[in-house]
Amino acid sequence: MKAALLQMRIQTENEANIQKARFLIQEAARNGADLVMLPEMFTCPYDTRVFRTYAQPDGGENWKALSEAASKAGVYLAAGSMPELASGNVYNTAYVFDRQGLQIAKHRKMHLFDVDIQGGQSFHESETLTAGDQVTLFDTEFGRMGLMICFDIRFPELARLLALGGAKVILVPAAFNLTTGPAHWELAFRSRAVDNQVFMLGCSPARDMESSYHAYGNSLVVSPWGDILARLNEQEAILYCEFNPEDTAKTRRELPLLNARRTDIYELSCL
Amino acid sequence: MKAALLQMRIQTENEANIQKARFLIQEAARNGADLVMLPEMFTCPYDTRVFRTYAQPDGGENWKALSEAASKAGVYLAAGSMPELASGNVYNTAYVFDRQGLQIAKHRKMHLFDVDIQGGQSFHESETLTAGDQVTLFDTEFGRMGLMICFDIRFPELARLLALGGAKVILVPAAFNLTTGPAHWELAFRSRAVDNQVFMLGCSPARDMESSYHAYGNSLVVSPWGDILARLNEQEAILYCEFNPEDTAKTRRELPLLNARRTDIYELSCL
Repeated sequence: MKAALLQMRIQTENEANIQKARFLIQEAARNGADLVMLPEMFTCPYDTRVFRTYAQPDGGENWKALSEAASKAGVYLAAGSMPELASGNVYNTAYVFDRQGLQIAKHRKMHLFDVDIQGGQSFHESETLTAGDQVTLFDTEFGRMGLMICFDIRFPELARLLALGGAKVILVPAAFNLTTGPAHWELAFRSRAVDNQVFMLGCSPARDMESSYHAYGNSLVVSPWGDILARLNEQEAILYCEFNPEDTAKTRRELPLLNARRTDIYELSCL
Repeated sequence: MKAALLQMRIQTENEANIQKARFLIQEAARNGADLVMLPEMFTCPYDTRVFRTYAQPDGGENWKALSEAASKAGVYLAAGSMPELASGNVYNTAYVFDRQGLQIAKHRKMHLFDVDIQGGQSFHESETLTAGDQVTLFDTEFGRMGLMICFDIRFPELARLLALGGAKVILVPAAFNLTTGPAHWELAFRSRAVDNQVFMLGCSPARDMESSYHAYGNSLVVSPWGDILARLNEQEAILYCEFNPEDTAKTRRELPLLNARRTDIYELSCL
């Protein structure tokens, strides 16, 4: 399986971002990608004040354009995330389309990013966004995958629930910043991969020091053993990586972690 | 609070290890240590075939010697771990004594290390050891702490339960090997620290290439932000580190993770 992570530089106009995504999806497909990923909130500036302005309903113009792009390119498209408007609420929502352009997954960011680092970043998503409440798994010809968004990765419970639900690969559109990125980006992806013996894919926007939010970049693919199989720096680029989701079986056989959980002592459950 | 991690080189005789530990505990106390840690299975070779031979009951000679050592030195002593014999079973057991030599915690390794890496380590603790079944917390003048042993750290559920139970510091006597150590030692300690916003202390035996088990060493102290505050290499030494367990409050305030868990969606509970 060949994945292509589109570490796009995000522009201020929705339409320009969609056009660029369509162009890059085609380029990735020409280069043999089976699965194409876009970054978190790739249709708009990463700024809580504008999310509502850019929000569209499920099935709206952006959704249609991305469904068509998946179908035209014949790839699985994990379409990053974008602000979704539903019943007056705004969500940070990730759609996944199959090779025919059918939506096969939808995840609304479940943990909203509220942070207030002394001398560093201050950011409060919960001021404008509503949190989702679903654990999101979907099936592909390459096996079952899980989906989460950025801050969701901070919570070991969610990755664990995805792995226990059968995920061999977890996709994470994300936009860590220049405080949390250097400190925790690699750590988060590697630890979730090792603990749950899954492939972890993180797709960030490219860094743009002229925008209001400075994304860390460093899109990456991590193996179930915790090795970084591929990684970008902060600049705009496509990250290609070939891997076999079935390799999770070898890691799980050699170092049995999921089977060695003490389910007689503790229980992690979905309510 | 000043911690001293005794990265001892383990000898083959129980008595020699106990004498050395007593000597080093006194040295650490002279250097101002409040809390002294010993490594996993520091009384015997790390070899499943000999654990039963070296095993002693709770309150046995080793226990008495360590209780006295804590009292004499006036330190908290997290006495690594040693094989414990109880009702015919052998456990990998960690005792903690207070400054008066009173036992304030006892943890039996809950997850047994069974691994079979192609071209690497093969080790099966479950052949001879029985697993414990308790989540272990204890209180000190520096706040509440949690205790686990080596392979226990692989399971995010346990560290999470300790943090939710009030631990600000988690002590881990451990003996990763030369396959899992370079791959996962630092990652495990840093990720549990960051996810749970606690201090993580790992105390390993020194590496001895003439013994049957080659420990990774690299005893370390990690802050709630994931910074490595102090770290040894593979050689025998004492690692000293001063830190304030109350600093967890700052990290938890700036980056609220424990409070941001979606307890309406998932639940982690002790059975």
